[in-house]
Amino acid sequence: MPSQTNARVLFNEVPTGYPEPGKTTVCDTSKTIDPDNVPLDGGILVKSLYLSADPFQRGMMRAPEVDSYSPAFTLGESILGYGVGLVVRSEQPDVQAGTHLYGLLPFQSYNIIPSLDHGFRIIDNKHNLSLSYFVGVAGMPGKTAYMAWKEFSHAKKGEVAFVTTGAGPVGSFVIQLAKLAGLKVISSAGSDEKVEYMKSLGADVAFNYKTANTLEILKKEGPIDVYWDNVGGETLDAALETANVGARFIECGMITGYNNGGYPIKNLYNVVTRSITMTGFIVLELESKYSEEFYNTVPELVASGQIKYREHVYEGLESVGEALLAVQQGTNKAKAVIKVAA
Amino acid sequence: MPSQTNARVLFNEVPTGYPEPGKTTVCDTSKTIDPDNVPLDGGILVKSLYLSADPFQRGMMRAPEVDSYSPAFTLGESILGYGVGLVVRSEQPDVQAGTHLYGLLPFQSYNIIPSLDHGFRIIDNKHNLSLSYFVGVAGMPGKTAYMAWKEFSHAKKGEVAFVTTGAGPVGSFVIQLAKLAGLKVISSAGSDEKVEYMKSLGADVAFNYKTANTLEILKKEGPIDVYWDNVGGETLDAALETANVGARFIECGMITGYNNGGYPIKNLYNVVTRSITMTGFIVLELESKYSEEFYNTVPELVASGQIKYREHVYEGLESVGEALLAVQQGTNKAKAVIKVAA
Repeated sequence: MPSQTNARVLFNEVPTGYPEPGKTTVCDTSKTIDPDNVPLDGGILVKSLYLSADPFQRGMMRAPEVDSYSPAFTLGESILGYGVGLVVRSEQPDVQAGTHLYGLLPFQSYNIIPSLDHGFRIIDNKHNLSLSYFVGVAGMPGKTAYMAWKEFSHAKKGEVAFVTTGAGPVGSFVIQLAKLAGLKVISSAGSDEKVEYMKSLGADVAFNYKTANTLEILKKEGPIDVYWDNVGGETLDAALETANVGARFIECGMITGYNNGGYPIKNLYNVVTRSITMTGFIVLELESKYSEEFYNTVPELVASGQIKYREHVYEGLESVGEALLAVQQGTNKAKAVIKVAA
Repeated sequence: MPSQTNARVLFNEVPTGYPEPGKTTVCDTSKTIDPDNVPLDGGILVKSLYLSADPFQRGMMRAPEVDSYSPAFTLGESILGYGVGLVVRSEQPDVQAGTHLYGLLPFQSYNIIPSLDHGFRIIDNKHNLSLSYFVGVAGMPGKTAYMAWKEFSHAKKGEVAFVTTGAGPVGSFVIQLAKLAGLKVISSAGSDEKVEYMKSLGADVAFNYKTANTLEILKKEGPIDVYWDNVGGETLDAALETANVGARFIECGMITGYNNGGYPIKNLYNVVTRSITMTGFIVLELESKYSEEFYNTVPELVASGQIKYREHVYEGLESVGEALLAVQQGTNKAKAVIKVAA
């Protein structure tokens, strides 16, 4: 195999609002790589097959001096995200060429990683799922839903859950977990097509937050015992207003605040008066407790159809900017996955 | 003993801002009682000795249709609060005349309670504390501090705690618990005299929030691992801005929101980005787990001087309105206690 382009998606500029394709990130094709001969220095050459566009990446598009739970992207370097890759060559004794890896990868056609440290995992695809599922329902978003629901929901049969971004990869899984636990599920998303999808997943009440009044619906269908927050802002304020005493707020994300500063929350006072617990979390910290259970359970549930899942596939590294913007604006139709190579 | 006045503090009007003595509550002397002959119907006649003015009572001064964790006061009826009373007569076999009771009492000179149900407790004062302490450091405020700190702080030696209303009955106890656990303690209150008191309790950094800039102090002395919130509002926003990853916010109260509506919180987003847990709680729900430990530990710690405590004593039921306003405005100098009778 001769030298070939090693396309890379570079962090080009810190965005102030939504990330702009070609401005916040650019696809660079100036580098080449010779897969057969590039020195590995004991490492593993990985060819990217599927990469994942996720909301959390917006938080890494920042100046390095701003603190957060995740490192900032470096200007001029490849952005990072979850991916599935094919091992092309390996100098690590526990990793064979031809196997597939899952983990945080620089968004490039090829990467050399030193070892399986830092969270890489060899994929055991015994249920023959699409490999792309391992960045979705059987990857970070799936773990986020599964592990945080198990750890923080304290769900009891007959309670009421409200799930935001219910058509997304995390929300759609949470809806199904809540139904399996015997809860009444209210869920919201931003299009009528997504509303139909949420109903097909079992949501008892599903609505389009762009055309319906969230607060009125929650007043009618609540009070809420478990709130799965992916959005923050006005929706969080409505959930606080309609929370039951003892409600659990699982703070997975506040995407409405990522791109336009913080929406001022008026009803936080109810945390005191209604004994609400709000929990922010890092899914990596739940992995040691739930990882084996997750991989033993979830791929099978998906393969058997007990958990439904769908994707929105973007083609090629040049579509990464578009996918990153879509997950911030909610214009992707399902889990955003970038197909880099077959 | 002939018939005598049974003075009562009545809920007269729902306040829109601070509770006003003589308007929100009035002291009524139109009723009489004959302690020797009043029929008890199997119950217990209790003479009020000490009553307690606490921030939570503001939440009960509301229209009954507004939901909360505590019932609303009834217009025209006596308000409720914690108190210590002397048993004058008893038709309950487990309660002897001459013993002292602690529990939620209507604010009257005399009450007839049916039994020890609903949280009444016979006081075992083996360390000869002032009986008033059993509505303070050895009562509800002390339990609030002790039990919630034990349950929610997850404090580790060397961490940083920020305690608001640090000169009050709850905050002053929390400062001392945090120091016992080996934390660096930052604490705030609203007068220089209170700052000196907090320093005498061991606070490493104590400041007057009316003259110092809370955010600047937290930026310099933080980041914060445990935040004990009694105030909400701007201070909570500053704590969110300077919270460490994994911080625990114990939401004991948001007194700044009780009297002037909700202050809009801008930094709640950090709950997600810094994995913060915020917990509202009802101390009654922690009682079964910690009550015996509390009564076995705290009175002795106070008697031996290992835990310091002080009071601001108001004289007579006619001073209740003044005491209720003081605890909302922070003008009381220490735990507000109303001495009703010796």
